[in-house]
Amino acid sequence: MLLRSLRAAVSATASLATVAGAMAVIGAASPARADEGMWTFDNFPIQTVNQKYGTRIDQAWLDRVRNASVRIQGCSASFVSDEGLILTNWHCVVGCSQELSDPQNDFVKNGFMPATREEERRCPGQTAEVLTEITDVTDRVLAAGAGLEGAAFNAARTAETTAIQREGCGDDPKLTCQVISFYRGGRYALYKFRKYDDVRLVFAPENQAAFFGGDPDNFNFPRYALDAAFLRAYEDGRPAVTPNFLKWNPNAPAAGDVTFVSGNPGSTSRLLTMSQLERLRDQQMPITLLQSSELRGRLLEYSLTGEEAKRVSFDPIFGLENSFKAQYGQQAALTDPAFMGAKREAEAELRARVAADPSLVQRIGDPWADLERVQATARDLYLPYRQLETSAGGGSTLYQMARTLVRAAKNPTLTAERRAALAAALGAETPIDPAMEELRMRYWLSKTREYLTVDNPQVKALLGRESPEALADRLISGTRMTDPAFRSEAAGMTLEQLTAADPLLAFIAANDAAAQSVGQQWASQVNAPTAVAAEKVAQARFAVYGTNLYPDATFSLRLSYGRVEGWTRNGVTIPPFTTIGGLYERATGSEPFNAAQAFLDAEGRVNKDTVFDFTSTNDIIGGNSGSPVINAAGEVIGAAFDGNIHSLGGAYGYDEALNRTVSVSTAAITEALRTVYPQPRLLEELGVR
Amino acid sequence: MLLRSLRAAVSATASLATVAGAMAVIGAASPARADEGMWTFDNFPIQTVNQKYGTRIDQAWLDRVRNASVRIQGCSASFVSDEGLILTNWHCVVGCSQELSDPQNDFVKNGFMPATREEERRCPGQTAEVLTEITDVTDRVLAAGAGLEGAAFNAARTAETTAIQREGCGDDPKLTCQVISFYRGGRYALYKFRKYDDVRLVFAPENQAAFFGGDPDNFNFPRYALDAAFLRAYEDGRPAVTPNFLKWNPNAPAAGDVTFVSGNPGSTSRLLTMSQLERLRDQQMPITLLQSSELRGRLLEYSLTGEEAKRVSFDPIFGLENSFKAQYGQQAALTDPAFMGAKREAEAELRARVAADPSLVQRIGDPWADLERVQATARDLYLPYRQLETSAGGGSTLYQMARTLVRAAKNPTLTAERRAALAAALGAETPIDPAMEELRMRYWLSKTREYLTVDNPQVKALLGRESPEALADRLISGTRMTDPAFRSEAAGMTLEQLTAADPLLAFIAANDAAAQSVGQQWASQVNAPTAVAAEKVAQARFAVYGTNLYPDATFSLRLSYGRVEGWTRNGVTIPPFTTIGGLYERATGSEPFNAAQAFLDAEGRVNKDTVFDFTSTNDIIGGNSGSPVINAAGEVIGAAFDGNIHSLGGAYGYDEALNRTVSVSTAAITEALRTVYPQPRLLEELGVR
Repeated sequence: MLLRSLRAAVSATASLATVAGAMAVIGAASPARADEGMWTFDNFPIQTVNQKYGTRIDQAWLDRVRNASVRIQGCSASFVSDEGLILTNWHCVVGCSQELSDPQNDFVKNGFMPATREEERRCPGQTAEVLTEITDVTDRVLAAGAGLEGAAFNAARTAETTAIQREGCGDDPKLTCQVISFYRGGRYALYKFRKYDDVRLVFAPENQAAFFGGDPDNFNFPRYALDAAFLRAYEDGRPAVTPNFLKWNPNAPAAGDVTFVSGNPGSTSRLLTMSQLERLRDQQMPITLLQSSELRGRLLEYSLTGEEAKRVSFDPIFGLENSFKAQYGQQAALTDPAFMGAKREAEAELRARVAADPSLVQRIGDPWADLERVQATARDLYLPYRQLETSAGGGSTLYQMARTLVRAAKNPTLTAERRAALAAALGAETPIDPAMEELRMRYWLSKTREYLTVDNPQVKALLGRESPEALADRLISGTRMTDPAFRSEAAGMTLEQLTAADPLLAFIAANDAAAQSVGQQWASQVNAPTAVAAEKVAQARFAVYGTNLYPDATFSLRLSYGRVEGWTRNGVTIPPFTTIGGLYERATGSEPFNAAQAFLDAEGRVNKDTVFDFTSTNDIIGGNSGSPVINAAGEVIGAAFDGNIHSLGGAYGYDEALNRTVSVSTAAITEALRTVYPQPRLLEELGVR
Repeated sequence: MLLRSLRAAVSATASLATVAGAMAVIGAASPARADEGMWTFDNFPIQTVNQKYGTRIDQAWLDRVRNASVRIQGCSASFVSDEGLILTNWHCVVGCSQELSDPQNDFVKNGFMPATREEERRCPGQTAEVLTEITDVTDRVLAAGAGLEGAAFNAARTAETTAIQREGCGDDPKLTCQVISFYRGGRYALYKFRKYDDVRLVFAPENQAAFFGGDPDNFNFPRYALDAAFLRAYEDGRPAVTPNFLKWNPNAPAAGDVTFVSGNPGSTSRLLTMSQLERLRDQQMPITLLQSSELRGRLLEYSLTGEEAKRVSFDPIFGLENSFKAQYGQQAALTDPAFMGAKREAEAELRARVAADPSLVQRIGDPWADLERVQATARDLYLPYRQLETSAGGGSTLYQMARTLVRAAKNPTLTAERRAALAAALGAETPIDPAMEELRMRYWLSKTREYLTVDNPQVKALLGRESPEALADRLISGTRMTDPAFRSEAAGMTLEQLTAADPLLAFIAANDAAAQSVGQQWASQVNAPTAVAAEKVAQARFAVYGTNLYPDATFSLRLSYGRVEGWTRNGVTIPPFTTIGGLYERATGSEPFNAAQAFLDAEGRVNKDTVFDFTSTNDIIGGNSGSPVINAAGEVIGAAFDGNIHSLGGAYGYDEALNRTVSVSTAAITEALRTVYPQPRLLEELGVR
């Protein structure tokens, strides 16, 4: 699942066996070849594509696609009607489905499929954003912070980007302005979005239809997953008017057909230097994978303790396993000698060409050496930074909310308006399972003691004389943070009041200075010098290779191109299509290979020849989930929801021979809305006869 | 804990944070310097030691120590009286304590301390072995299999070593003969042991006294652990007569005092080639650590489900966490660029010196290249070999016993006598917790599906149409293997009868051919060519560096020398001693930092100045647990039970500046037997006034 990881510190494996050694090597340092690249809309290789695929893409085509593309939390999506109807993946709305559910109404298991528009239900906190304008602000950003270092550099940069954003959008609640980094600081642009903050759930199938095959089939192909869902943007309580939408094409493409994917790839690391990659490989990735594995084991055992435990742990386990598999695949690339060897060669070539140009050396110095020094600092700071700051709480929702309250109370610059917004946000109903919260807290506390050591002063301060288990129990069973009214009230309290009011808040308040301190150290000693050096590496790359390059993914709108195609490895060819009929053949009746009830019921009626899922050569990554797959005519023909197992190393490089995007076809969605989950109102809205 | 891992596929972190980058580098390729080396008793560097430490070690001294040294399952020990009394670690007998326990008598939690000899209780399956004779058999072993490859090579070697062993010991049940490989095939020797198979538990303290600090303090120092226990060897129902024993010295050593450790280090990999180390680093270790982490999470959550679950999971969690930390430390060495760089240099030097000697090249060829080719095969075979063969069952006791029965039934050469012995062994009472068995089975089945993939034919055969959870439930809830009488009876059944009698046996019988096949592939395509090539590397090493070398550890008797010393790192000096008083200061009252009840009760009486644990420079590793620490006079002054965090990379190299052995002092044991757990009969037997 190409979900962008928004969770604490976690980030899929059909076939872990086949990952290692499968990476062919294409770096992003030199101009992209093949169907490689997640291109910005203002630098799309129109000519290359038109020549290769015989298409007639032009700026008007690009503008239409951009205006129909939607960014939602962690995912991508598209308008597919003029009444705000949004196509995305089921797995992008499962969090909403879970939040709307309770023990009596399980919309994750049973799906959500209201018969009327009036029954569409708002997803708490969900927004939808459409990119309307791109403005280059590189010069302004680079000028800010020039000559500064560390915290001063960060402060100057933050002040300037905040100013640019404010100038762009003012206080208009319908707009979002965001200064986004490209090419790791080679370019900065202001992205202006039209924002919808009332987004409702329209249709989600049963989880067994959408996620058939579960984690074992995740990042696998052949695949039989109806990973599709619909949302709707509302404005002033009515469906938003969205004349810029993608026409629904209910027919499946043919092998070889050109495909475009428009969406928000979360992040790639193709432009990192060797020293950065090596620290990831040797420290950050292994520790992340190991801790995720233990949490996975804990959650899996917890899920077996009862029906309600199974229900509430579904989404957390789903997200964790998805991240684990994706990161496992990334680590496989980082530990592949051939892959890393090619990366090393590409860096050596760039550095040699820089060294041969004295004026360039004069301008940028040796940012590679600078970054290597930063890695030594990062190695020292990583564990405390991870355990006390970025992964603190182990994914506990109560911890996160409590820390937000503590930091708001400590922030003298917080306006009354923002405090009110915070009270409103934290006062919203959120389903919380105390047993799971406690599990996450004891997991986090025990791993923090293990990795930072018993004798570490911060560990001693956290635990005092209690065990991780007893402390987690005391904090979660004693907190009032489960009560929305209390949370809302707490947004107006001073730090002293928070401490007096609640044990969890008191615990965080007592330990937060150390956490913030290591966060500030990381920002000033790692992030700031990395930004400065990476900008210089980017300048070197532009100087040597020109600007016909695509930037690393930064969860900003990108367009990739490719064609419908399977792949061949070790003499085995995987065709690009599956059919609905194949689902019935693969189903064993046992979780997660049990077909959804509605599919079983409809077996005699459904058209089994309908194309279900398909693969294409598009270069995408986590965050692209829900992206529309678009044909040459600009019509939507599918929703991308996954990559194949070989795409997992895509964080570090693209291999056209093996990397594949996996999408659910509009043909399958149409057939499902017609026969499996009859939704005549949606078919009509989609223009399907 | 320096326990040799005997468990399925698991093999210890006070301070995971401090491991990486701490390894200084000393290879074993060139003659050992410093206090490095786990030396065989027939090649001990007597002169070096006598010169360095002013001792008067001679052959008679070595013989006395050898004859008092005892090998027990997974651990080391020593005779400390002439009536068969054996000193070892608590953690070496915790498995026995757990087996003798039941919900009413928890000898792990409460300790085992009978007032009389008559109440000493036999540990099921426990043996004690004393090395009596060493005979070089290198020529015979090397001649066998000469010119052969693969399975034929293995068969010829097995036949010859079996013949050598039979010639040495015949059928005498009081003898064990074992042909042991040294220097990775540079030398083979027949080790002949006097064997005791009636070994009884005499004394074990409370687990909180022995394992105070638990996993967080494991491989840590300063340390406050009474990790000591006593066993007794019996013969014909009476205490064995053991005139060769180590005199008990109840006084702690002084800093700088020379120390010898005699025991059975389990295994080191200091002589592996780079290609072998790299496969471990990139494949075997990461997969092992990740799977162990998930199992750890599962077991930890299971242990929280109730008092009985906590009791039965204590030893499995203890063993798993110990292995995890040890392997984490090993992986830190393998991913340390400086460490691996030094390894690479040492190998390059040896290979260059070989290349400069044409007659040597003529004799050995290029075994490094051979081993590199073997690694490619090993990479392909490792996952099926691991999941289907070496880790099959995920540590389930029932699975292991059932597989033993199936393989016995399939073995046409099994004698009636050995079948009867099998019936007796499997018919013994063994405590089995079905819930834990099921947990292990579902863990194994789900990881096997994940790592081998859903579409793997063996995975399909294992699971059929069932989920891992449902299959584990069906097999464990349905099996009769929990009944000792049935197990005993089953030892006489044919494969058809086993299949008809029990679902677990039927499951294993149906899948065993595939498992045995991958086992045979590993043996013939990995083990056999590795043995051939490693012997040549060993010959090269002897030719270049002479024979003043110590071999890799192979769970055979070794002697290491050193001195009582702490260490200094990053300007922080850790003194070599702790005192009993320190325990009371470190105790928080919360698990695992709660002091044992008897220590709390005795606080007013115990001599707090008594040395508790101490560190020394001895070079040891897992398997050395329970080893006597011996002074220059040949008296026992402690029992080694752990290494410090920096010793974990000791699998691959020894660093005298940081590697430390951690031992519990005879002074502390004496004080405990006097004041905390009064055992006048034992003090008298130890000759303490």
